[in-house]
Amino acid sequence: MSNSIQVFNKYAFGEVTEQQVNAMMPEAEQALEVLEKGNGAGNDFLGWLHLPSSITAEELADIEETASKLRTTCEYVVVVGIGGSYLGAKAAIEALSDCFAPYKADHTAKVLFAGNNIGEDYLHDLMTLLTDRRFGIVVISKSGTTTEPAIAFRLLKDLLEKQVGKAIASKRIVAITDARKGALRNLATQEGYKTYVIPDNVGGRFSVLTPVGLLPIAIAGFDIKELVAGAVEVEQGCNCAILTYAATRNALYRAGKKIELLVNFNPKLHYLAEWWKQLYGESEGKGGKGIFPAAVDFSTDLHSMGQWIQDGERTIFETVISVGEQQNRVIIPHDEADLDGLNYIAGKDVDYVNKMAELGTRLAHVDGGVPNLLITVPALTERYLGMLLYFFEKACGVSGYMLGVNPFDQPGVEAYKKNMFALLSKPGYEEASAALQEKLRR
Amino acid sequence: MSNSIQVFNKYAFGEVTEQQVNAMMPEAEQALEVLEKGNGAGNDFLGWLHLPSSITAEELADIEETASKLRTTCEYVVVVGIGGSYLGAKAAIEALSDCFAPYKADHTAKVLFAGNNIGEDYLHDLMTLLTDRRFGIVVISKSGTTTEPAIAFRLLKDLLEKQVGKAIASKRIVAITDARKGALRNLATQEGYKTYVIPDNVGGRFSVLTPVGLLPIAIAGFDIKELVAGAVEVEQGCNCAILTYAATRNALYRAGKKIELLVNFNPKLHYLAEWWKQLYGESEGKGGKGIFPAAVDFSTDLHSMGQWIQDGERTIFETVISVGEQQNRVIIPHDEADLDGLNYIAGKDVDYVNKMAELGTRLAHVDGGVPNLLITVPALTERYLGMLLYFFEKACGVSGYMLGVNPFDQPGVEAYKKNMFALLSKPGYEEASAALQEKLRR
Repeated sequence: MSNSIQVFNKYAFGEVTEQQVNAMMPEAEQALEVLEKGNGAGNDFLGWLHLPSSITAEELADIEETASKLRTTCEYVVVVGIGGSYLGAKAAIEALSDCFAPYKADHTAKVLFAGNNIGEDYLHDLMTLLTDRRFGIVVISKSGTTTEPAIAFRLLKDLLEKQVGKAIASKRIVAITDARKGALRNLATQEGYKTYVIPDNVGGRFSVLTPVGLLPIAIAGFDIKELVAGAVEVEQGCNCAILTYAATRNALYRAGKKIELLVNFNPKLHYLAEWWKQLYGESEGKGGKGIFPAAVDFSTDLHSMGQWIQDGERTIFETVISVGEQQNRVIIPHDEADLDGLNYIAGKDVDYVNKMAELGTRLAHVDGGVPNLLITVPALTERYLGMLLYFFEKACGVSGYMLGVNPFDQPGVEAYKKNMFALLSKPGYEEASAALQEKLRR
Repeated sequence: MSNSIQVFNKYAFGEVTEQQVNAMMPEAEQALEVLEKGNGAGNDFLGWLHLPSSITAEELADIEETASKLRTTCEYVVVVGIGGSYLGAKAAIEALSDCFAPYKADHTAKVLFAGNNIGEDYLHDLMTLLTDRRFGIVVISKSGTTTEPAIAFRLLKDLLEKQVGKAIASKRIVAITDARKGALRNLATQEGYKTYVIPDNVGGRFSVLTPVGLLPIAIAGFDIKELVAGAVEVEQGCNCAILTYAATRNALYRAGKKIELLVNFNPKLHYLAEWWKQLYGESEGKGGKGIFPAAVDFSTDLHSMGQWIQDGERTIFETVISVGEQQNRVIIPHDEADLDGLNYIAGKDVDYVNKMAELGTRLAHVDGGVPNLLITVPALTERYLGMLLYFFEKACGVSGYMLGVNPFDQPGVEAYKKNMFALLSKPGYEEASAALQEKLRR
């Protein structure tokens, strides 16, 4: 069995031939070279590229020490952040956690998330939970003024200070923010919060291996040394899998496959797909182009989206993440009566059935006209997860350059914010506000 | 404020004109007539159409009694089912529950789900949780042989019987299955389980208002009388909203809008979108056509998919579910220092900000070339949720007929199962197995 991330495109061919994909490899290699030489668009945001190998043992130890304090002091640690300041940590924690962790008693802190929506009931229900509980806060924001986390943090800070007083609260709050400037940096300095830095040259969606992702993951009890070590292996290893993924998906897109479905057969990978959607959607969806990133959790969604995938418009392809080993073993028991007719698989472990569902599904969808890419991961451990995260990041950079966009900007995300500020009559938006009110009257 | 579900298509026009949509209304009305007269394709699966008004008070009382017994006897009730035997109950329970319910102590049973995947770790983690806990099982399967729920039920039944013995276990297991035939019906008869019937003329994705959905929802503590009453209101009310939704989305699809994004601004609606994906994807995705149903949770996903939506391929439209009133109120506090600059909204409730985000986003996306449909729901109560569920069901029937498909079959979902059975060497699949092994050798 392989000890790394592998990509197989054997079943991706049909409308696109193997020759066509191979013919695109030089283009992929050129995109890789542009990325590595740092002479492409958005090259002031390449801090993530050699990030894994540049993290020092001291930095990791410092993060672990902070995590350990919060873990043992608090029942809950609320991570306040949105987008890249939420999805990386959430994806990693879910991938590594017990599926029923929220229901299980634990002697260390449970990690919760807030500031990733503007749900009034969500915040109410969270604050009800935290009332009279020992909790801490990790607040993540480059500027400190992004609306969603700013609202959540103002509320939670208020709650915490009322519960334990300003002095103790300041020991239970950690801020991850700009090195020098911004509202959160100023507040942290004033209140004496422990802080970590979001580097200027790492965009939010590429920040999972900075303290933005590492601190919450460590608080949840996972080994960030291993996570980073896995990323380093891919950073310093062969680019073959990266090139294959980037070349094949671009070939499929050019052939009219407009939607990429990231497929898992493991409920723990649901949020990894959400992280991937931001990584690829925000990097590639611009200038009227880009693959639409969507995700399905199988076999769950074979019983919902399965019909469409098998038989709807032939404009999709699938990328299956296949996890080799499970963490635990469950054997299907024998049943004397066998009314359910399952005795033919009695004695097998559940994952054996899952693997046959996976292979059977890939073949069925290929037969139905859905090209298939396969990404294999040996197991869901910290090390392999670190590999997978970095693999997707680097392949995204290569893929974006092949598409002909700047994969490191996100000009389109400001539009709704401007409207929202205008509607909320935020100071400085008076003109925009008047214009919008006029438009709404029409 | 309206007391029902309303649909607004004011911002859906651009590439498609209001005149073009209005010109499709007669077609929508004809589709509605075909549906109501029962002379269209799949008309042996129209049991859901007049289901709400046909549910008797006795039936509801019986479900409530069963639910009450399980609620008070058990710490956990595991609902075993997949597809339509999972998503409706999950959607309703999530929409009505406290966002942090799993973390909160409760004196009644918590509802968990299994049999909706083949995750070995998932089943392991679930069984670890249930060991030495009082739990019950609601097993939902028309045949009793669907692989995912059959495996989960075999394991959980075994665990429960080992914990409390066969006699007590049989009081804690409820089966929802075929009225007369099949493996689960036979087992239920043999073991003396309490049972409910899945009607022959109601497909899985339309079954949320049968005991399939109602029993789990009642166990979770919600008022199924109100839920059904809401559905009855829409069943017996005006079809305007239904026709507007069906006509507009078909007009947009014909104009090249291939992806419908169901949008919420409330984390509680995440699984309603998953339910909707099955309803529309499985009903319409066939014969090489059908809108691709996708979903986003805003404002969370404005920070991931927002860039693509604002600026990627112009082949999408959005349908926003807007919830009027929140269940709770959270006021943004004033802060003397105002470092985060939020004092301009201090004193406002959080939902006010959310509503401005919603309106601002709709306008920004319309400006970016994304047509917008708006569905308004007065609040997330049982009654309004019942309305919304039935609204989507009926609009789906109308929409599918307009598309020219049989909205009530799902021929494509068998393909992966056949392959899986062949790969597992299930008795009866010897030939398929040999053929598949041969294919894999190539």
